[in-house]
This record gives sequence, structure tokens and C-alpha cells, in this order.
Amino acid sequence: MKAVQVVGYGQNLEMAEVPEPSVTGPYDVIVKIGGAGVCRTDLHILEGQWAEKSGVTLPYTIGHENAGWVHAVGSAVTNVAEGDKVIVHPLITCGLCRACRSGDDVHCAQSLFPGIDTAGGYAEYLKTSARSVVRIDDSLEPADVAALADAGLTAYHAVAKAARKLRPGDRCMIIGAGGLGHIGVQALRAVTAAEIIVVDRNPDAVELAVSLGADHGVVAAGEQVPRVLELTGGQGAEVVIDFVGEGGATRDGVRMLRRAGDYHVVGYGENIDVPTIDIISTEINFIGNLVGSYTDLCELMVLAAQGRVRLHTTAYPLERFQDALDDLDAGRVRGRAILVP
Amino acid sequence: MKAVQVVGYGQNLEMAEVPEPSVTGPYDVIVKIGGAGVCRTDLHILEGQWAEKSGVTLPYTIGHENAGWVHAVGSAVTNVAEGDKVIVHPLITCGLCRACRSGDDVHCAQSLFPGIDTAGGYAEYLKTSARSVVRIDDSLEPADVAALADAGLTAYHAVAKAARKLRPGDRCMIIGAGGLGHIGVQALRAVTAAEIIVVDRNPDAVELAVSLGADHGVVAAGEQVPRVLELTGGQGAEVVIDFVGEGGATRDGVRMLRRAGDYHVVGYGENIDVPTIDIISTEINFIGNLVGSYTDLCELMVLAAQGRVRLHTTAYPLERFQDALDDLDAGRVRGRAILVP
Amino acid sequence: MKAVQVVGYGQNLEMAEVPEPSVTGPYDVIVKIGGAGVCRTDLHILEGQWAEKSGVTLPYTIGHENAGWVHAVGSAVTNVAEGDKVIVHPLITCGLCRACRSGDDVHCAQSLFPGIDTAGGYAEYLKTSARSVVRIDDSLEPADVAALADAGLTAYHAVAKAARKLRPGDRCMIIGAGGLGHIGVQALRAVTAAEIIVVDRNPDAVELAVSLGADHGVVAAGEQVPRVLELTGGQGAEVVIDFVGEGGATRDGVRMLRRAGDYHVVGYGENIDVPTIDIISTEINFIGNLVGSYTDLCELMVLAAQGRVRLHTTAYPLERFQDALDDLDAGRVRGRAILVP
Amino acid sequence: MKAVQVVGYGQNLEMAEVPEPSVTGPYDVIVKIGGAGVCRTDLHILEGQWAEKSGVTLPYTIGHENAGWVHAVGSAVTNVAEGDKVIVHPLITCGLCRACRSGDDVHCAQSLFPGIDTAGGYAEYLKTSARSVVRIDDSLEPADVAALADAGLTAYHAVAKAARKLRPGDRCMIIGAGGLGHIGVQALRAVTAAEIIVVDRNPDAVELAVSLGADHGVVAAGEQVPRVLELTGGQGAEVVIDFVGEGGATRDGVRMLRRAGDYHVVGYGENIDVPTIDIISTEINFIGNLVGSYTDLCELMVLAAQGRVRLHTTAYPLERFQDALDDLDAGRVRGRAILVP
Repeated sequence: MKAVQVVGYGQNLEMAEVPEPSVTGPYDVIVKIGGAGVCRTDLHILEGQWAEKSGVTLPYTIGHENAGWVHAVGSAVTNVAEGDKVIVHPLITCGLCRACRSGDDVHCAQSLFPGIDTAGGYAEYLKTSARSVVRIDDSLEPADVAALADAGLTAYHAVAKAARKLRPGDRCMIIGAGGLGHIGVQALRAVTAAEIIVVDRNPDAVELAVSLGADHGVVAAGEQVPRVLELTGGQGAEVVIDFVGEGGATRDGVRMLRRAGDYHVVGYGENIDVPTIDIISTEINFIGNLVGSYTDLCELMVLAAQGRVRLHTTAYPLERFQDALDDLDAGRVRGRAILVP
Repeated sequence: MKAVQVVGYGQNLEMAEVPEPSVTGPYDVIVKIGGAGVCRTDLHILEGQWAEKSGVTLPYTIGHENAGWVHAVGSAVTNVAEGDKVIVHPLITCGLCRACRSGDDVHCAQSLFPGIDTAGGYAEYLKTSARSVVRIDDSLEPADVAALADAGLTAYHAVAKAARKLRPGDRCMIIGAGGLGHIGVQALRAVTAAEIIVVDRNPDAVELAVSLGADHGVVAAGEQVPRVLELTGGQGAEVVIDFVGEGGATRDGVRMLRRAGDYHVVGYGENIDVPTIDIISTEINFIGNLVGSYTDLCELMVLAAQGRVRLHTTAYPLERFQDALDDLDAGRVRGRAILVP
Repeated sequence: MKAVQVVGYGQNLEMAEVPEPSVTGPYDVIVKIGGAGVCRTDLHILEGQWAEKSGVTLPYTIGHENAGWVHAVGSAVTNVAEGDKVIVHPLITCGLCRACRSGDDVHCAQSLFPGIDTAGGYAEYLKTSARSVVRIDDSLEPADVAALADAGLTAYHAVAKAARKLRPGDRCMIIGAGGLGHIGVQALRAVTAAEIIVVDRNPDAVELAVSLGADHGVVAAGEQVPRVLELTGGQGAEVVIDFVGEGGATRDGVRMLRRAGDYHVVGYGENIDVPTIDIISTEINFIGNLVGSYTDLCELMVLAAQGRVRLHTTAYPLERFQDALDDLDAGRVRGRAILVP
Repeated sequence: MKAVQVVGYGQNLEMAEVPEPSVTGPYDVIVKIGGAGVCRTDLHILEGQWAEKSGVTLPYTIGHENAGWVHAVGSAVTNVAEGDKVIVHPLITCGLCRACRSGDDVHCAQSLFPGIDTAGGYAEYLKTSARSVVRIDDSLEPADVAALADAGLTAYHAVAKAARKLRPGDRCMIIGAGGLGHIGVQALRAVTAAEIIVVDRNPDAVELAVSLGADHGVVAAGEQVPRVLELTGGQGAEVVIDFVGEGGATRDGVRMLRRAGDYHVVGYGENIDVPTIDIISTEINFIGNLVGSYTDLCELMVLAAQGRVRLHTTAYPLERFQDALDDLDAGRVRGRAILVP
């Protein structure tokens, strides 16, 4: 089959002919790819940023946001059957460790991450596990939801955690209305009546967020902190979800957080660097957020089927992988780029 | 001032001229009534059902769903000022007992209940406490929200508790789409993405519920149990909120509840009568629900100001109290009857 | 191997020579039995009470409280290895359904229950799953902990749920200080500082409970309700855990439950039969409790290894199964009877 | 009456003769001081560190850890009566703002802090509020518990929050076994079965912690990180409670925190300075902790009455205030210094 591979760091991806994956274990599932999201992480992989962390041997097939149709299943698989439309959770987890047994499979003691440390989905077929596939509604198409498998799932996970604290009348500030942020706004609107304030440097992104359900949009142009304080009665927001995490976002974000508030860290780049005296005197919390669990993905697919979460996508044939990456790198992609074999 | 009073059980209410209430304690608040909801409980009071329980001395002024404007405040009142538009929480609570200190003021060890055990709001003025008044948004009028003070607050309280368990994809069945139920549907829609199934004997009520955001409406005409099971994949709903509690509602309701589900008891009349073996083998819960707390009322007023919860009302001048009660008794009131002084 | 089997309802168990179980699936685990608890449920099975519910085909090997050593494992098993000392969770669960993925495996959509609906542990070897075995501390012996696999696990599960609500100063009343209750007292003492009140008809059981950490013991001889009310300032206990559920226990129990309290149903026999008006006016809850999850069993084994939960046992060689059952039926067993092959 | 006052920053305290406080408001409570804790914060106040933040006018009476007997009450006070033994919550809160109404009174929108921004308890009498006094058990003496009013309450608050996450088998690492830490160990032992690991530079403090219930004591002498990792199977602790917050404690602490763990910030001095990539890739949380609420203090007094939390104290007559401060500054106080009028 055709597969797009990392052949060297600092080099372009290359398309290769590789053997189709096959079922070898009882819980294996082979998915015929219907869409694979092109993610900024893919650019970072090519730059070599993940080389040491993943320990992957080159060449290997990239692509960690995948959806498609079940092509073959191992002998013990009972939750999906050949032909089912599925989205693929980004991790293959063991199901036996303490984290997995608690429903917190993202912290599995021995997970694999296709597209990062083993063969991914820029290909015709992907090998994953029964524990990683979620059937999607008839009304959804794999290419439309693929990018929810990682970026969307991370946004939903943070929102679902944040929402447990948000009551009607509370304010939730979302920093960053890009790929994750615009999913976050929609998910938050679906599961809370909190007042949503979105801050982004890009006026178009702010406008999109407002059209998707944010109550207030603030273009970050130097005056965002006083503006958000004004919108929150001088107190700040009960919850901040920071999808940026760099360029000074965290310093500003903490200034817009209310006493006893939760600061959700999702985006990354800079340090959280806050005096402990400020943390204790206002009793604020910093909450880390990784990608969501399998059950989070099931819930997100419900929101997608209900039409409560929608993703803008631009499809590219698999062969045009280089165009997709170039467009992403140059900021030319509207929504998310999706490779379709 | 004018006040409508209970002068004897089994007798009609009578309008009397009584002294205006005045501030005597530091936390007293006098509210000029803008609207007082006429509630089925008022009919029960007249029938004498509450005589022994409340221990109230006749005559006394009835009316426990009140809203209006602050007319006078005691020396220690800091949260409202003369002229503020307010809704009145139905209880006057002590603020010092363990329940009050935990935010659970409904279980206050020494509360008063104006309209039930002391003078209520079928009058020009009502005496309550700083701990009982919630300022409402400029966009809301007292007569429009008064009935949210008790009926609406009870519905919201149950929904807010139920919502903590409801994830996208879960089903919440609401039994009864009347006064409380139609508030419940709106509140549930505002704070969750759960699938809402409403069951009621009255096709008009079911239709209203669907127009307010329910996903499925089921007219209870003998086939409601199999119909709900069909809508829930044969499993039943993760949560049932029973606003009826009589006429066999609980027996049916339990049959439509999923394993590990929560059955919220709000309406009352019959017994919960379920074999312990069924409770443990399916691990279901029965959750009691009383009226909401002060913070619940604050949250409900946010939903009202956002337009997410709306109440249908029919206004009557205070003098026409007998018409309002007669119309309620005869089922002629559309939405809630409100007395306006 | 030797196995003790149900050969007919209303008949005695019989020892038979049957084939040893063998590994056939990737997650199979064969356990060499070190101890099998003799449970009152076994008597009920013989009476035929479970015949229809389980649908099991006779003859079959009974015994659902098992512990021992891992004898053989399937190809995909990574959490235990041959020779490991293990206790066996009573259910074999699928690992793929929503309940399993949420950590709530007890509600697995397709579980098996060895000893009830498939071959159990009154035998030399038992076939179970990687998902059902918990390694135990070196300091523990299989025959000493086997009875914690079901009876103890049920008690711990209820206590762990109840404890989430119990703060220092709260009262937890335990009804029934027998097999489950005396585990419950120890577990509750380990994880809360709540005041523990134990009520039982048997003075010896009450005395044992007090020696295990209960703060107050009350012998139920007609005056238990006023006595508990006196111990709780006239208010009742914040939490009741009812390990009896028959003989009027629930009626009494509700009278000893405080406003806003939780009534945990564990024992069964009679109906919960309470007016809805009482449930809503005091805002009490009835919480169903089934056996604990796999993670509950892991936690219970920690408490056992720490010496915080101890079980009294009487060992019988497997061949003396009839004596064990007779002794149990006649009330001659001190603690729990354990069959040791 | 006699009172010890701040007369200037950088100067010694002075004893003065000042008027006794009297009841002027309905919720006022005058407490005859039985003991006032001498706290390191008092030294900081004298150095002027709090001058700007508190805005207090000199001279004023210092002392924020107080207990004694009710001497006089305002007209609306129902929860205590003259002669009651009480401990005094450090804040006077309004009871009307959103935080107070939610039980989260520490975040009161308009609180006073006697001893910091108004007259405190280094005196014969203290003026506080009905909302601030907690009756203590007959078995407790004011001078013995006074230091629990702030230092102990802060430790208990952090422990109570941390405990919600701790299951049997989890590890909780406590950094710092001094004034707060040794209360923390006792409280944690009372409400969880978690494994407690205590790290401190002072071998005596470590020894005390172990004698009070810690499972492992580690003297911090450069090798504490590998030692704690060894004690936790190389994974780190599920929860860290950091009572130090300076001198590199936080950097070390984060290295000993497990994936998905909670880092409770209590002590302060340095910055939390952690890359966002580390926060999200391990999904850890930083939880701020301020002093406890009124209900926290009620619960702590239960633990004290049960003998589960004990404080070492050294009493000084009020006149010897300078000796107490000097001894504290020089590290000569064993446990906590208490001034007794």
C-alpha cells in the first residue's frame, strides 16, 4: 500500500510502497483510512523535535489523527466489525494497568502512539486496537471528523474538566481561538451556560468564535487584560482555558483569573512562572491537560453527531501530502488539512 | 396595606387591611411586591393540609413565590439597597448553623417560610431577610420571574444535581412537563448536552417540552415504558427526574431507569416501593430533591436573564385573587398565575 | 482434578473428577486455588434460587470467592505471571464496553460470574481472566483473603462510596455487624474520621465491631432507634450503611437517617417502601450498592496488606465441603469458612 | 485592658492599656482570650512586610490565632452564649457575598482579619463575630488549641482537599514537617489510608512525623529525590503537599510527583516555575491553598477533641510576649508559643 514516511529529520516526507498491516494479535483492528489530519506536531516531528522522545526508527509512517472504516479485526474483538465507520483514538493502551482500569487510559503505563512512535495514518491502512476505535454516527464521514481524534479531543478533554466547576453566571475565558480553541468554544457552549469570553490576536478567529457561541470576543492587541477585567466586574474569570501557552499568554492569563479560579494549561511553549505567594493568597489552581480518554472521544463523537461541534476542513488527496504540509506551514489552511487516500 | 389572608381552613381567602411590615432587625429587608405566584400548595393550605405542620396562627397572609423591589433595609444589610429589583428565596435562614455555613441553607436548623408559617406575599409588602433576596437583571420584571422563586427553583435544583452525572450521549428522562417540568427541560438544555426524553399524559405539555428543547416527547397513554426503552436501546435512561411522583409514575419510572442510574424524586404523592434486591442488583439510586438553595436561585436568575429559562404567566390584579385560585383549581391557567398588587 | 459440583437443586453438592481448565484465549488465566470462601449465596444456589437467573447447566463447579497462585496465562497477559499470588475478582468482564472503559466494570455489558454461571473455585484450578486477578502482598496468604473477593469487596465498595461524603464530626451508622459489616467497620475506620455507630441484634457481633474501631455499639432489642437518635443529638446519622435489608431494618434505618442523609442499601430481602413526601421534605437519598470494581479490590488488598482490614476464617480441606456448608447453615462458623484444596 | 501592640515597624511590640472592646453590632462576639498563638507572621508584621497590604493604622493590637471564652454577644447571636469555650476563625466574614453563601467564606468579598488589619488577640479581650467562633469540646483548653486557628487550619484545609483524591495504595508526600506539616501528617492519617512520606531537612522533625503516623520519613540531605522515587516504585507520589515552598522545595517536589498528580502549594517564598510542556505531558496540577473555611475549623476541632490531632505548645504569660517572640525568632520554641493573659 501507499504510505507517507519520515525518512530523515530535516528532510521532506516521502511516499513509499509498504506492506499492508495485518492482524496478528487478538485485539488488533485494521482501519482503512478515510481521512488523516495534518497537524502542527507533524511539522515538529520532521524538524526532529520528537526524535529522542519517541525513539522511533526511520523510516516510519506519520499521521496521528485518523478515521476510516474497519477493514479487519482480531479474534477477540467484539466492539466493532468489518465495515464500521470509526474514528481512531490516538493511543493504543494496554487495558490492564491501573490507569486503564480506572478509565484514565491516557496515562496507560505502556501505550503506543501510532504516527509518533509506530506506523501512523498517512497511508491506506492503519493498524490499531479494539480499545482505540470508536464507532461514529451514520451522519458523519471519516474525513470530516479525523482531526477531532487528537486536536479536538484535547480541546474537549479540557472543556469537560473545566465544565465541572462552571455554574450559570461563571465566566470562562478561552485564550486562543484557533484549531483547538474553536472546538473548545463549541464544546463549552454545549455543556454549560457559562459566559464565554474568547481572546485571540487574530480578529477573524475571534469573529468565528463569537459566531460559534462565545458571548464576548476580545482581540488581543495590548489591552486584553483590562478589557477582560472590565467584562468580569474587575474580578477575572472563574476559569481560564489557555490553548496558547506561549508568547506571554500565561502571564496575561493569570492576571485575568479570579480568586479561587482554575487555570487550564493546554497550549505549551513557555513556563508557568508564578510566585507561590500569589498562588496561595488567591488560592488559584493550575490544571494540566493532555489528550482526552477513550470515553472523552466517545462523548465528542456524540457532540459531533448532534451537530454541536463542527470542524472546518480542507481535503487533500494523499499524494498531495507535501502541499498540505506546506500550506499548514505557511498559514494557508482554513480550518484543518485532511489527507484522503 | 392590602393583604390576602387565610382566615380559616375550608374557607375562602379574604382581603384585609393590615399594617405594613417594618424593619426591626439588622438583616431585615422589606420588599414591595411586584408579583406573587399562585401555587397549588396555596390550595392545599386552604384545605388545611399544612395546618398542623406549619403551626401558623390564623389569620395570616399567604403567598410564597415573591418578587418585587427593595423598599427598606436593616442596618446591617449590604447586598441590596432601596429600589433594587429582587426575587425572594422562599426561606429565611439563620446563616449560622452548619447547613447554612456549608452553602446548604435549605437545611437550615431554624428557618422561616413566609406564606407558609409567617406572613407571605399576597400583599403590597413582604418582610424577609438580606439572606433571601437576589437582585435580578434589569431586563427581568418581578411579575415575570416570581413563580421561579419556588416551583422554578425546585426544578432547577434537581436539574443542577442531575446534570453533574450527565455526559454527552446520556439520556435524561423527565416525567411530567407541567409547571416544574417545563422549567426543568429548559434548564437541562442550558447546562448539558444530554438527550432529553419527556413523558407526560398531556399531549400539549409534551409538545411544549419539545419546543423548549426536549429531544423526544412521549405521550403517556399506556405504552410509555416500551417506548422509552426503545428510545434508549432497551437499557433505560441514565437519569430520571420525576416531577410527578404519583399515579404510578414511580413504578413506571424505575422500569425506564438504566443500571447504575439516578432516580430524582421531586414530585410526591405515592411511595417509592422497590425491592432492595432490585436496588442492589442494578445499583440504582433514589435522590431526594427539595427546593433549591440561595445560590441555586442566583444561578436560575442568570439563566432567566440569558433568556435560557422562560416562564409563561398570566397576571391578575391582587384584588382578583379568588379568580386566580379558581382558575388554577379548574385547570384554566396557562402557565402560572401571578398576583400583581 | 477434583471439583465440588452442583448436581441438582435440592441435592447435596458432590465431589467429581473433572478435566483441569486450560488456556484457550489470549487473556485467560488459570489459578491454582489456595482458598475458596463458603458463602451464604452457595446455600441459596443449592436451594435453586439462582437457577433461572444464572441459566447455568448442571453439573457445574460452585465457588465465587477465590484466591490462589497463577498457574498458566494466555499469550496477551502482562499483568501477572506464573507463580504470582492473586485474589480473583468475582466477575470476568469484557474490557470494551462503556462501563468497562469508565472503570465501572461491575456493570460490564457481557460479564461472566464463575461459581454462579460458569465453573467456580471449589476445585483445584479455576479459569478466569487477566482482567480479574489482583496480585496480593507477600505477607498475605490466599486462604486468608479469599473471602474478601466478594463479601469483603461488597462491603468495601459501599464504604468507599459512603466515605466521600463523611467529614470529621459526621456519624455513620452501620446496620449489621456480621460478615460484611465487620469488614465495613474496619474499612470505614481506615479511610474516615467519622463517628461509627454499629447496630446489630447479636451482642457478640456488636462487641466485635467496637473492638475493630466502631465508636458506639448498639444491641438492637427494640430500643435501637431512640438510642441512635440520642447518640446523634436527635438528628440521626449523616450516612447509614445497611448490610441487613430485611426484617424491618430499612424502616428503622430511615428513622435514624438525618436530613440530607445517604442511605446505602447493601443487604437485601425486603422493600424500600417510603413516602415520596418524606424523601423530598428531608431530601434523603437511597444509594444502591453492588459488588466492588476491580480497582476497589486492588484498594481492599492494600488495606489487607496494611493490616487495616482483617478477616476471621476457619479452614476446611476441600474434601470436607459438606461440613463447611453444614456448619455455615447451622451458624457454627466463626468468621468465614474457607475450603482449601 | 492590657494589649500588646505594634507601635512602629522595625520596633519592638509594646504592652499598653486600652479600652475593652464592646458589643456594637448584632453579630458581635467578645472573647476573653485564653491563649493566643505566636506565629512567624507576627515577626513579618513587625518587619513591616504587611504594612502596605494590610493598610492598618498604628498602634494596633497584634495576634491572629485566638481561643478563649465568650464574654459578651450581640443581639442576633444564637450559636454561642456567654461562657462558651471557643476557638476563633481568623477571618470576620460578611455572610452575604457569593463566596460566603457557597460555604467558601475564606474568599469573602469584604472580610476583616483581626491581628492583621484590625485589633487582634494579644490582649485580654478580642472582638470578633458570631460567624467566626466555633465551640470546642469540654476536653479541650483554649491555650492548647489556639494555634490551630490559623497554622493548623491551613494544614487541615490542604489535607482535606488532597484527601478527596487519595485512595488506599496512593502515596502522599509531605514536604516540611514543622508547625503546619506535623498537623498535616496527623490529619492525613485520620482521614485516609494513603501511604505518607515525609521529607524535611531536620531529622528531629522527620522523627516526630513518623511517630505521628507517617509511613516513611526522609531526611532531605541531597538524596531526597531518588529516595522518594525509590519509595514510590520510580513513579513519584500521587499527591505532594508542600508546606515549605522555598529553598528549591518546589523544583524537587515536582520531580517527585507522579503523572496526573496533584501538587498542593501551601508554603511560599519562591516561584512555581515549570515548563508548560511538562505540565501537559504529565497532566499534573498545582493546587493553591489558603487558610481553611469555618466548616474546616469545625472539622479540625472534631479531630482535636477525638485526640487525632495534637499540638505541642509552650505557654508564656502575656507579659512575657517579648520572650516568646525572641524564642521563636531564635528557633528555641518547641512546638508553638502561646501567650496566656
